[in-house]
Amino acid sequence: MRILSDTGVVFEDPRAVDLLRAAGARVEGGSQRVRLDPGLVLEKAALAPREFELVARTPERSVRVGGEHLVFAPTGGPAFVSDLEGGRRAGTLEDLHRLIRLSEAVPVIHHGAPEVVPTDRPLPSRHLDILLAQIRLSSRGLIGDTWGAARARDHLEMTAILFGGRDALSGKAALLGFVNSNSPLRYDRHMTEGLLEYATYGQPLIITPFIMAGATSPVTLAAAAAQQNAETLAGIVLAQIVRPGAPVLYGGFLTGMDMRTGAPAFGRPEAALGILAAAQMARRYGLPCRGAGLLTNSKVPDAQAGCEKANMLWPLLLAGVHYVPHAAGWLDSGLVASFEQFVIDADLLEMAGRFLAGIRVDEESLALEIIERVGPGGQFLAQPHTQRHMRTELLHPALSDTSAYESWARDGSNDSCARAGRRWRQILETYRQPPLDPAIDAALEEFVERRSRELQRFTGS
Amino acid sequence: MRILSDTGVVFEDPRAVDLLRAAGARVEGGSQRVRLDPGLVLEKAALAPREFELVARTPERSVRVGGEHLVFAPTGGPAFVSDLEGGRRAGTLEDLHRLIRLSEAVPVIHHGAPEVVPTDRPLPSRHLDILLAQIRLSSRGLIGDTWGAARARDHLEMTAILFGGRDALSGKAALLGFVNSNSPLRYDRHMTEGLLEYATYGQPLIITPFIMAGATSPVTLAAAAAQQNAETLAGIVLAQIVRPGAPVLYGGFLTGMDMRTGAPAFGRPEAALGILAAAQMARRYGLPCRGAGLLTNSKVPDAQAGCEKANMLWPLLLAGVHYVPHAAGWLDSGLVASFEQFVIDADLLEMAGRFLAGIRVDEESLALEIIERVGPGGQFLAQPHTQRHMRTELLHPALSDTSAYESWARDGSNDSCARAGRRWRQILETYRQPPLDPAIDAALEEFVERRSRELQRFTGS
Repeated sequence: MRILSDTGVVFEDPRAVDLLRAAGARVEGGSQRVRLDPGLVLEKAALAPREFELVARTPERSVRVGGEHLVFAPTGGPAFVSDLEGGRRAGTLEDLHRLIRLSEAVPVIHHGAPEVVPTDRPLPSRHLDILLAQIRLSSRGLIGDTWGAARARDHLEMTAILFGGRDALSGKAALLGFVNSNSPLRYDRHMTEGLLEYATYGQPLIITPFIMAGATSPVTLAAAAAQQNAETLAGIVLAQIVRPGAPVLYGGFLTGMDMRTGAPAFGRPEAALGILAAAQMARRYGLPCRGAGLLTNSKVPDAQAGCEKANMLWPLLLAGVHYVPHAAGWLDSGLVASFEQFVIDADLLEMAGRFLAGIRVDEESLALEIIERVGPGGQFLAQPHTQRHMRTELLHPALSDTSAYESWARDGSNDSCARAGRRWRQILETYRQPPLDPAIDAALEEFVERRSRELQRFTGS
Repeated sequence: MRILSDTGVVFEDPRAVDLLRAAGARVEGGSQRVRLDPGLVLEKAALAPREFELVARTPERSVRVGGEHLVFAPTGGPAFVSDLEGGRRAGTLEDLHRLIRLSEAVPVIHHGAPEVVPTDRPLPSRHLDILLAQIRLSSRGLIGDTWGAARARDHLEMTAILFGGRDALSGKAALLGFVNSNSPLRYDRHMTEGLLEYATYGQPLIITPFIMAGATSPVTLAAAAAQQNAETLAGIVLAQIVRPGAPVLYGGFLTGMDMRTGAPAFGRPEAALGILAAAQMARRYGLPCRGAGLLTNSKVPDAQAGCEKANMLWPLLLAGVHYVPHAAGWLDSGLVASFEQFVIDADLLEMAGRFLAGIRVDEESLALEIIERVGPGGQFLAQPHTQRHMRTELLHPALSDTSAYESWARDGSNDSCARAGRRWRQILETYRQPPLDPAIDAALEEFVERRSRELQRFTGS
């Protein structure tokens, strides 16, 4: 609160500054720096819903955000893809489509579709290709572009077409946007525009600073968490001014800087503590919380990736966050979407679900009669009780190998990355494209074609 | 309690059965099956210390067990070793020595020394070679053999020599023994003999059932935890009858059986829940708790190993266990001690320490003045505050790579296993042998030579 009140936050957008000033923020002269008093911050933050539904066009894919719910979404944003056969390479539209199909076929992915930049498509209209692919190939709720007003409006328009018009969309949280502040304490023009557009439409926003302790915030974690809190709340206040009750998530993405490389260090204790701090602060304001993701610096699905991802997952489970983007597929600090890593991560997410289910304790599960019947020195495998509960009590992750060394060696001594290379292709074969009303499909196609022509003409590409 | 009272536990050793009967246990006729009433169990369990010191010959290596303390010990027991250059192979005395030296040079290993079976040494006297290596090469507290009275006595004798005689050892917990029940509900002759010997000497014991839910216990986790509790308490009661106040740890090693292979499945949610259950039960009886370890089924230090190890570490931290064996080096369900995995695990253990240290919150760490000074759009790297705290606030694990892809590729595209292959050799070069009184060294040598001759003659090998 002292950071917001004394230091303030810069919004590089005159509309945002005017809106904040009109709501009671202090702004000196023609400055873009906005200072917010605690009363204003708390009043506006309290307008945000504690829980809301992220609506998907396929109703059974709608998910709750907040409360006791935990939503996993796949990785988004990489410019590169990788798989064992093809190596690391720039993403294409075909890669994007394959990743979305893979994700659609993985039940533990609850919301969104993976995004990789289709670098073989014209730059000005790529965002249209991306959302069209999401809508056509995935049944899950949508994730939209927020970079500047134009892209945001295009995505909001497409979502309106999908849901039967702008009115039909009203009151529905159907297109989730990610807004990131430019830490320290600054929202650039593009992000602010995106925030304003989504909030105006009543569409949900995850508002996340990029805190790298030691570079974009002080190195001490208490300061990093405080600054993250100030930046997130500033964005949330703006969204609530634009539209009281707009669905928002408190976003955390705190890392420490690796001194040796200057890079953000994922999967480390500082990031784990940052997740706990963010979720605690979000609870303080009654806001649903976005947890960082299954993030790693590793270039390949190796032991480092495995440790770092589990080191992110566990604090996410402990913290009680509500939405986890980048939960599958992320590699190389977010530059790469990996097909192998995607299915490795999916197994880890399945394990999280079994862990959270806990230990059921009742007469049937205590099974004292069975213990008495089998007695000292016996074995339980042949007991009907074992057969009855084996498949529900124990999880059998597809990729985890427990075979004897000799049989593993006979099968080719495949490490988990090699096994994942077979596994994602098997999963991809189970993909079924979700049905879409042909009239809506045609309207979307028409919109995308028209806008693509306009945008490519406008930018001369 | 109902399992102990109604079903009972078998001790395949007449001395143990007599001791238990004399203390009030119910034993029918000449049976080895012992039934224990709750009053007797609680009375005896209450005699065990809540906290004690594991004494090392180098006093600064002594560690506390119980309370807020957490002790990591390296892997023990594998018959195979592996490293990237040499592959998987039967362990030798030279491997044992190298592993102990590596472990000694890793500060996050608090107690014990890694053990690999020196298969190039005569079978009957290998236990002597193992403890002699531990004593000579490591400054940390000792882990001893419990398999049968003879081996246990040899190790207790050697420990007495090291500490200046049996009297000097009295009241000191200097040789930690691992006793495992043969689940379900049975202590075999060798383990019972070991338990009796250690308890008689007042030496500490970790008493751990081998619960594989679905095979050695019912498949439901509630039953598995209850049976584990019954077996552990039975062993602890016996130790307390032999010597009231004998230091013991409540041991948990609960896994589920992998249906596809019949193997215990490590690093899964069932094992994680088992760790929490064991620690909760241990707290109920005021006993220090041993957590399973950083266990994995993986054959190599890959993503599976990384995930599974982190999936064990996190519940160990959450559960508040006090002693973690197999915390570094374990691979392939415990059949292999891996040099690469050892240093990968050590980094993970370092991270655990930083995580447990938490977030310090005070004026210096909140750094509001620094945030005000840098302001929106600035950067913190050059701030004296950053320089002042960078090395203590952030952990920089040696093996974690955060470099840019291009520089990583230029360096040879080494995954974390390949980097670990260089790292353990670098660490090994820093090893310094801890000093040992030459008279004690000579006495130990004399004992080992004499006993080796006796044992090899006795067994004809």
